Amino acid sequence: MGRLSGGDPSLLRRINSAVVLHALRGEPAVSLTELVQTTGLSRPTVEGVIEGLAESGLVVEAPQEPADARKQGRPARRFRFHAEAGHLLGVEIGARQIRALLSDLSGRVLGSLTHDVADALPAEERLERVRGTVAELLRKAGVARSTLWAVGVGSPGIVETDGAVRLSTALPGWTGLPLGERLRRSFRCPVLVENDANAAAVAEHWKGAAVGTDDVVFVLAGLSPGAGSLIGGRLHRGFGGAAGEIGALHLLGREARPERLLSTTGTPLHPLDESAVAEVFALARSGDVQAREAFDRFLQRLVHDVAALVQAIDPELVVIGGWAAGLDGVLEPLRTELARYCLRPPEVALSALGHEAVATGALRLALDHVEEQLFAVARTSLLGR
Amino acid sequence: MGRLSGGDPSLLRRINSAVVLHALRGEPAVSLTELVQTTGLSRPTVEGVIEGLAESGLVVEAPQEPADARKQGRPARRFRFHAEAGHLLGVEIGARQIRALLSDLSGRVLGSLTHDVADALPAEERLERVRGTVAELLRKAGVARSTLWAVGVGSPGIVETDGAVRLSTALPGWTGLPLGERLRRSFRCPVLVENDANAAAVAEHWKGAAVGTDDVVFVLAGLSPGAGSLIGGRLHRGFGGAAGEIGALHLLGREARPERLLSTTGTPLHPLDESAVAEVFALARSGDVQAREAFDRFLQRLVHDVAALVQAIDPELVVIGGWAAGLDGVLEPLRTELARYCLRPPEVALSALGHEAVATGALRLALDHVEEQLFAVARTSLLGR
Repeated sequence: MGRLSGGDPSLLRRINSAVVLHALRGEPAVSLTELVQTTGLSRPTVEGVIEGLAESGLVVEAPQEPADARKQGRPARRFRFHAEAGHLLGVEIGARQIRALLSDLSGRVLGSLTHDVADALPAEERLERVRGTVAELLRKAGVARSTLWAVGVGSPGIVETDGAVRLSTALPGWTGLPLGERLRRSFRCPVLVENDANAAAVAEHWKGAAVGTDDVVFVLAGLSPGAGSLIGGRLHRGFGGAAGEIGALHLLGREARPERLLSTTGTPLHPLDESAVAEVFALARSGDVQAREAFDRFLQRLVHDVAALVQAIDPELVVIGGWAAGLDGVLEPLRTELARYCLRPPEVALSALGHEAVATGALRLALDHVEEQLFAVARTSLLGR
Repeated sequence: MGRLSGGDPSLLRRINSAVVLHALRGEPAVSLTELVQTTGLSRPTVEGVIEGLAESGLVVEAPQEPADARKQGRPARRFRFHAEAGHLLGVEIGARQIRALLSDLSGRVLGSLTHDVADALPAEERLERVRGTVAELLRKAGVARSTLWAVGVGSPGIVETDGAVRLSTALPGWTGLPLGERLRRSFRCPVLVENDANAAAVAEHWKGAAVGTDDVVFVLAGLSPGAGSLIGGRLHRGFGGAAGEIGALHLLGREARPERLLSTTGTPLHPLDESAVAEVFALARSGDVQAREAFDRFLQRLVHDVAALVQAIDPELVVIGGWAAGLDGVLEPLRTELARYCLRPPEVALSALGHEAVATGALRLALDHVEEQLFAVARTSLLGR
């Protein structure tokens, strides 16, 4: 105990700054008196901290409220967190599109941009497209690259903690690519790379179908499905970053390859051909027998994959995302089947973020990184020492 | 910060007690001077804490070492944690056996007892057998029931946090049984109930095949398999306590029921008949064709179940437990198959604890509970407030 309050004044300053920023966060404007009350710090300490935060651009004085102006005497100065002091990016690097979201330090989205790309695009050209999309987004939003504090990236495959892609079958040249390192050359801020389904899980928890639910499995349903899980509100990456990589599970059942599952002609569908898939879904709804059979095969596969995840992890909620089109027809049969095969069936919901999920989750990861720097202080635990 | 050191003297006393106990733990004997050095507390504080701990029986004076006696002057008094001040139980309530382990407060096992029971035994009689086994163990060890500090219990099924069995297909009358509440009537100390595979996972991490490995899946391989997982060193129970309940997964594959899998005659094996299973394993090793085919069917099922767990969770290590006999023949083919179907194959090892795993894990859970009371202090986190 003594060490914290006596030994390290810079740590104490950091803690006090974090406490004051925490009290300012989410409030439109707070007076010094209110800060003294909510933080338990002395008035001189609060004044010193506010001064330091204002110098670094993180706090600005808020305009006076009309009510204050009418009062007698000098109105109290009020301060707010200066969320515009910096910016964040959330980027999806997908097989068929590059999507970028720009936000301020509070996570408020200021702009977004999506560009379609060919799924056969080589890695270097794909990276070039990412850089181009980001540059265009920054230019359109009038935001200087130097104000970026962190960049989050979501992409298919197993991603190492340093942002290298260990394995990715969806994007050409992606396996072995030091994606984080490559992108860090374009930005002077931290770049955080995450598996796309993991990022989407984070996004649904932040502002989608899983708000308020801390134990969630997000299934990026597709011809080759992937999944991301939150356990106790925290992303579960797995020991090697491969948690939720369920794409090969069906091979064990000696069943048809997924591209054949949804085919009504016997010719496999293209693994990423969403429009062909949407067509099959629509045909199935209209009563076409072959399409209905294809849909049922797809559903059976999805049930199997989701049931495996549910039985292993036992989440409160499963969120189904991926193809936006036609997925609402999947929900009810999935619920019914899971109730048959899972001892404790979870709730099942559709993604609320759709195509925005991966980029939104990537943005949230960048925001988490910045908030950890701004608001977190060392946690003390006697057990752990 | 100020609140901790100034506001609550009883909390400060508790913290100081925890710090001193922590310093004593695992050491044969520690002097006051050494305690002052390792804890950073003042000598009067350490003396006061030691006095209080001695009064409550948790600390005793250690006998003088011969080396001290030879020195001139009064030898330094030395103290040790009095692990014999209390006792813990770890109990497995299985389909075919009741097993109980007794330990002191350091987790050192003082005795164990196992009784076979019929798998058809009704719930009330099974509970009576548990009480009888524990009474016999305590009597043989010469330990008074009043010295029990905590009891851990491992049993098949989905177990609620209050110790009620939500669902169990293995034991008659188990589903819906308020197992924790019923056992608490027999003990005046906390009773912690856990799923058997979960308990076994904890045991292998404590003193088995998973020592030093924090991301582990333990598979209780049987005709109806279950699994327990540690994620980051902590037991993953799932939102509803059903994580790892993979027994129904194979139904989705429309494959044979597990009792038929290992049968060489077409007549299903009894789900719990270990000796019949061991016989099939032995026959398969000796080259019997039908037994070999049955073994291969069993292996394929096991691979599928384990692959599902691995793909969902991505552990560093999978520990295979359950039937002790014949399982070493499973290990190599399991490794080979997992390498084919998992993007990041884990290490695979056999259980080091065998039949002791569940009771050992139950004991560890009781020990965790007591250690949390003795050594833990409130963790502070500004983020969380």
